[in-house]
Amino acid sequence: MQAAEYIGDKKFRMVEGSRVSPGEGEVCIQVGYVGICGTDMHIYHGVMDGRVKPPKTIGHEMSGTVVEVGAGVSDYVVGDRVVVRPLDYCGECPACTAGHSHVCHNLKFMGIDSPGAMQNFWTVKARTLHRLPKSISLEKGALIEPLAVACHDISRSRLSEGEKAVVIGGGPIGQLVAQVAKSVGADVLISEVNAARRDFAEKTGINAIDPLAEDLHESVKTWTQGKGADVVFEVSGVQPAIDAMTQIAAVRGRICVVAIHSQKPQVDLFQFFWKELEMVGARVYEAADFDMAIELVEQGHVDLDPFISSISDLGEVETAFASMDNNPEGMKALVRCGEEAHHA
Amino acid sequence: MQAAEYIGDKKFRMVEGSRVSPGEGEVCIQVGYVGICGTDMHIYHGVMDGRVKPPKTIGHEMSGTVVEVGAGVSDYVVGDRVVVRPLDYCGECPACTAGHSHVCHNLKFMGIDSPGAMQNFWTVKARTLHRLPKSISLEKGALIEPLAVACHDISRSRLSEGEKAVVIGGGPIGQLVAQVAKSVGADVLISEVNAARRDFAEKTGINAIDPLAEDLHESVKTWTQGKGADVVFEVSGVQPAIDAMTQIAAVRGRICVVAIHSQKPQVDLFQFFWKELEMVGARVYEAADFDMAIELVEQGHVDLDPFISSISDLGEVETAFASMDNNPEGMKALVRCGEEAHHA
Repeated sequence: MQAAEYIGDKKFRMVEGSRVSPGEGEVCIQVGYVGICGTDMHIYHGVMDGRVKPPKTIGHEMSGTVVEVGAGVSDYVVGDRVVVRPLDYCGECPACTAGHSHVCHNLKFMGIDSPGAMQNFWTVKARTLHRLPKSISLEKGALIEPLAVACHDISRSRLSEGEKAVVIGGGPIGQLVAQVAKSVGADVLISEVNAARRDFAEKTGINAIDPLAEDLHESVKTWTQGKGADVVFEVSGVQPAIDAMTQIAAVRGRICVVAIHSQKPQVDLFQFFWKELEMVGARVYEAADFDMAIELVEQGHVDLDPFISSISDLGEVETAFASMDNNPEGMKALVRCGEEAHHA
Repeated sequence: MQAAEYIGDKKFRMVEGSRVSPGEGEVCIQVGYVGICGTDMHIYHGVMDGRVKPPKTIGHEMSGTVVEVGAGVSDYVVGDRVVVRPLDYCGECPACTAGHSHVCHNLKFMGIDSPGAMQNFWTVKARTLHRLPKSISLEKGALIEPLAVACHDISRSRLSEGEKAVVIGGGPIGQLVAQVAKSVGADVLISEVNAARRDFAEKTGINAIDPLAEDLHESVKTWTQGKGADVVFEVSGVQPAIDAMTQIAAVRGRICVVAIHSQKPQVDLFQFFWKELEMVGARVYEAADFDMAIELVEQGHVDLDPFISSISDLGEVETAFASMDNNPEGMKALVRCGEEAHHA
């Protein structure tokens, strides 16, 4: 079987891999599609080489079909269409025993810390699987993982019907957060400096504002009749967004930190005191978030079609990465990994 | 009647005030004792003159006895011993209508934005009162307000029995937070650089650590068997504490920001993502926090006696402030304001 391997410095190579026979509690999946994540782009740029240790097959946003089932697996049979929740947790640390295995002290992220899905066949623990309903294509199935990220963000923020939410940053995750926010009945505004991304928001039913052209604080004040935003999602990772998030949040407003901040930004803690703000971090997802993501797509509450920017074959993976590099117009590039995927 | 007036630049003067007859919904209180708060010290140093607009009678941590009742007041009678929750809210803004009048958009803090308690008689709205049980002296009654601050912090943090909490900063509020944390059944550790304050903690049953002598992160790791602190109270207002709070918090740990940060510190938002941390701001108190504070003292769960560092007469208020200036050994200086208070 064919596998793509990231070999460092924006380069991939195709190798003849060996299909791994599933052990106890494992299944082998014929991979359908794999999406390229922002984290994959970081890997592509070489900044995560220390953790990834190339050469390595990466990729974790995926869909596929079960082709072989190991001993002790009773929930899945050959032919089941599935997605993988790519978290390998220890089950024994304080986080796992407290029921938070997705933030396990020893968490291994599949496709980063262990081999990923950019190959024809991927053998994984059955406990990572979620079943894909017939109504969801394998193409869309590859976007369930990032949609589950957005579901987790909504869950962490406790956003509810009738509330007003501002999403700062209109990249793929920010746009998905906005879609999920809308699906729970919230009013949503995206703040985004890039015109193409604002257009994407508007085309998918989300109001967007350019914070460089308009005063976001004043706009939110007007929009909320002076109250401020019930929830702010920080999905940009830049200091101006950190300044804005405390300004635009309502008294007792909740801020959900979605972006990964490698620097320590300056945060206006006075506003946390003055308005009794709340801030929660959100990392990956829990099983319930995958269930919610699948349900949102199945029931037509979130349309993933506009998010698919391109589909490339596995052999063209390097080109697919290059096409997403510094391309704010691209939302999600998919890589077609399995032969049967064509028929899905 | 006599009133102390702050006149700017660490100075007070005694003036002959006029006892204000209570209007509808108001009561006149013969003031018993008034505590000097950290905020009063800021006023004393002149840094809040723009807001305070001296000359002004300040003071908001108080106890007293009702001596006159205005029209429409049915809950209180002459002779009732009371404390005042010194918040004057509008009742109409989004925060008030959402039930959060203590963080009213137009909140006036009595004793800062309007005249305070450092006088023989203070006339206030009856809705600000809480009744003081017979078992609590007027001296201790003056400490109900700062204890209510601590109760509010505990409430905001959702600290519960069996959890481990670290209080960073062992000033009067930090020590009271530690006492309330202990009263709800939590294990508590205070991190404090000043030896006198560590001694105070130990004498009142709270373990204390010097973060300049020991590695706080390692100590908390050992104390919590690698888990980290369930709750961290940031009561210091300094950057090293901001660095420590994200380090020592457990996965899904809660951080309660109690200190007032006039600068914007650098906050490690990566840790918020990685450990799914939560941070809540806490400002003043709600009615339930006063009720809890009174109950804690009445039932003997918190002993306020060690917190009373000195008692001065109203005429000596300037000396009382001077004695607290840069004095880490002082916890709470009381000012005796009414004649009857002697007999309480």
